[in-house]
Amino acid sequence: MSKLASAQDFSKQGVADAIAVLKQQFGDRLSESEAVRSHHSHTTTRIPQQLPDAVIFASSTQDISDIVSACHKYGCPVIAFGIGSSLEGHVNAPFGGICIDTSEMNNVLNVNTEDLDAVVQPGVTREALNEYLRDTGLFFPIDPGANASLGGMAATRASGTNAVRYGTMKDNVLALEAVMADGRIIRTGSRAKKTAAGYDLTRLLVGSEGTLGIITELTLKLYGVPEMIAGGICSFPSIEAACNAVITTIQYGIPVSRIELLDEVQVRACNRYSGLELPESPLLLLEFHGTEAGVAEQAELFTSIAGDFTDAEFVWTTDAAERKKLWKARHDAYFATMNLMPGGSGVSTDVCVPISRLAECVNETHQDIQDAGLLSTIVGHVGDGNFHCMPLAMPDDKDMNARISKFVERLSERAIRMGGTCTGEHGIGQGKQQYLLEEMGESVEFMKMIKTTFDPKGIMNPGKIFF
Amino acid sequence: MSKLASAQDFSKQGVADAIAVLKQQFGDRLSESEAVRSHHSHTTTRIPQQLPDAVIFASSTQDISDIVSACHKYGCPVIAFGIGSSLEGHVNAPFGGICIDTSEMNNVLNVNTEDLDAVVQPGVTREALNEYLRDTGLFFPIDPGANASLGGMAATRASGTNAVRYGTMKDNVLALEAVMADGRIIRTGSRAKKTAAGYDLTRLLVGSEGTLGIITELTLKLYGVPEMIAGGICSFPSIEAACNAVITTIQYGIPVSRIELLDEVQVRACNRYSGLELPESPLLLLEFHGTEAGVAEQAELFTSIAGDFTDAEFVWTTDAAERKKLWKARHDAYFATMNLMPGGSGVSTDVCVPISRLAECVNETHQDIQDAGLLSTIVGHVGDGNFHCMPLAMPDDKDMNARISKFVERLSERAIRMGGTCTGEHGIGQGKQQYLLEEMGESVEFMKMIKTTFDPKGIMNPGKIFF
Repeated sequence: MSKLASAQDFSKQGVADAIAVLKQQFGDRLSESEAVRSHHSHTTTRIPQQLPDAVIFASSTQDISDIVSACHKYGCPVIAFGIGSSLEGHVNAPFGGICIDTSEMNNVLNVNTEDLDAVVQPGVTREALNEYLRDTGLFFPIDPGANASLGGMAATRASGTNAVRYGTMKDNVLALEAVMADGRIIRTGSRAKKTAAGYDLTRLLVGSEGTLGIITELTLKLYGVPEMIAGGICSFPSIEAACNAVITTIQYGIPVSRIELLDEVQVRACNRYSGLELPESPLLLLEFHGTEAGVAEQAELFTSIAGDFTDAEFVWTTDAAERKKLWKARHDAYFATMNLMPGGSGVSTDVCVPISRLAECVNETHQDIQDAGLLSTIVGHVGDGNFHCMPLAMPDDKDMNARISKFVERLSERAIRMGGTCTGEHGIGQGKQQYLLEEMGESVEFMKMIKTTFDPKGIMNPGKIFF
Repeated sequence: MSKLASAQDFSKQGVADAIAVLKQQFGDRLSESEAVRSHHSHTTTRIPQQLPDAVIFASSTQDISDIVSACHKYGCPVIAFGIGSSLEGHVNAPFGGICIDTSEMNNVLNVNTEDLDAVVQPGVTREALNEYLRDTGLFFPIDPGANASLGGMAATRASGTNAVRYGTMKDNVLALEAVMADGRIIRTGSRAKKTAAGYDLTRLLVGSEGTLGIITELTLKLYGVPEMIAGGICSFPSIEAACNAVITTIQYGIPVSRIELLDEVQVRACNRYSGLELPESPLLLLEFHGTEAGVAEQAELFTSIAGDFTDAEFVWTTDAAERKKLWKARHDAYFATMNLMPGGSGVSTDVCVPISRLAECVNETHQDIQDAGLLSTIVGHVGDGNFHCMPLAMPDDKDMNARISKFVERLSERAIRMGGTCTGEHGIGQGKQQYLLEEMGESVEFMKMIKTTFDPKGIMNPGKIFF
């Protein structure tokens, strides 16, 4: 069993020494104020906050290399921070240490329109990149919901609604620059679209959650903005019927860009919150990208597929305003759910199963929610077999929060039992370490070997991914 | 600098001991005959053969675990073998040792038609898998040319003509089972389409060329057989014109399945070999997959794009026999090249650059071929910026072979200088170790750290990827 860093490996003196040295270099850009430290460990989740000892606002790769070198010298934990929208406690500082805020590293360094790629700093958010690209006819498709930083999205292997067509961050990062645990700066690849040159360090760093290195530059794939976008919705009598329509759609090779499932609890919540009048049964929302003829063909094919599984009509449009209206239930889903329990907070869960098991997994989960007396909606990126529940609790309702924790445990185990994963896109962080072990078994030992050889002092985001 | 295994680390006694022990277990399935050993180190290239001391025909994961455990115990090199179609000396045994032939592990274990995935043993070839899938309406798209084993294709991160649409092995392996250097068996993932659970060991093993573990099972993505396939060809007045047509096609987001470039030397060779009458200028060959309307739209869009760069007509068809005729030049390219020098042998090179630099890279390479007095064709998977030259020499022509080596050096350096890679799909093996260093710099140190922590005795395919 590889030994990883634990609290006793980090001395208060080491942390203090690192801060003292770095204060000389960074001056006002190093903050020890509680407000700043608290903001940088805000987990947006049920996981309690654990504050770093200091936050440094980095403005260059060399800054980050200097900070990590000092932390390496003095044995001080170091945690990278994008915008803090991760969901499994990734930015927490369980052993204290220094948080590196990358939000000022927000330059798009290069856009190569002919090669459909861009080189960006890690603090650029996905919306900022797309805003920057507006006049180029290109876009970056990965959309995890939050306006996350691209460095953070790579570090957590983010994806979201349109991964079914465009893949996840693993598929859309061509190369990285990163600062490793001793401060060395490496480049993991080139701008070539494919390579067979050595081990794939790019994809080793993507999803490593800041535990192996800090991403300081990303080379990303871009795509042409589709000539036409169509959106549509269709109700189904059951989760099975909806899932079977999804399976058939994927099997036919229809290149759907988004295919989202809302369960009937979510639809009811949306009706109430947004004043909609949708049938209160499972709903699929679709989006097609292509030429005018292409999206029409996709929509027609889906109409004919849906007809085998529901009597309801598939309503679709290429008009942007109409499309927005049709998709209103999806856009408002989060707030509609939160509105079910004013003052409460939601726990965003995340599992992914082979789509053949999706109906079974969602149905069992649905039953589990009822049996456990929880209030929760279900929303899924069903083309990938990925879905989220959002059980609600009042912050001081200890019993309910405990029941939710047990529910998350059962949900993770259910997904693993069905040949899936305990996390499709949120990552392990502090929240899912035990399920990683269940899911990956002996493989975790090999992950830990990489961790200990790259970061022998265990300073890089300690307490994440592994126990 | 991490220390890797070298000749003195492997004693003749250790190898002999491992063989003696394994002979007891495997009997006739262990061969020490020179013919068998020679067959298993046939490199299909200019790289001289280096024979293993024995070959074992494995029939199960447990067999491989037993072999590797014994090799680990006695310090004996171990080399995995699929069908031996790799091109950079991957199956050579520079320090002797045991070659594990996986060709008898050729079962398709499971096909999940609803999830579009299959679980296969490593000795299944890509053609055998597609033959097996014939009645399912599904297929596995990766096509490196040779009827390679899927284990070998994963180990070398293979791709080929239709990677422009379907990606490479990195994109199409969902999970692996592998035997690691001490004989432990791990699984790197599930059948879920995406995951954010821990480090991406799947993609670490894909492309690791047998130096970290031996792949014993693969979970692969499948795709629906397209309703319609169209093929077409178009001549261009120059490499630039052809490349600009490619760039525009990719930027428009036309989902071409194949887009291949033959330079005029290759076209001339094909005319001569196959009795064709193609204009002796650069040629693009395309393939479109989709619905009937979809491929027609793609072909029409390409027609209009090509019109901006050539006066020649884009000729295309959906008729299978006609399509084969149109593509004859591409199918015969290898033999047409070999026919330029009867009795000679060709060195298949492999680089990949951003497509914006492709014309420049191909043109410089073309000039280099002339200046160096070589006889070589150029064929490219140009949608990815990947191309191959095939310089020819008589086996005993030392001067020409030396000139070819120098040419490969310049070509690799040229690709790296243009922001590309020294290998798009053939891998590093024994042939490109020095260029890996040039291309990846300090990153190679981190690759070697993984190598030494996973395989401290250096028994896994020693002498490959790293010096």
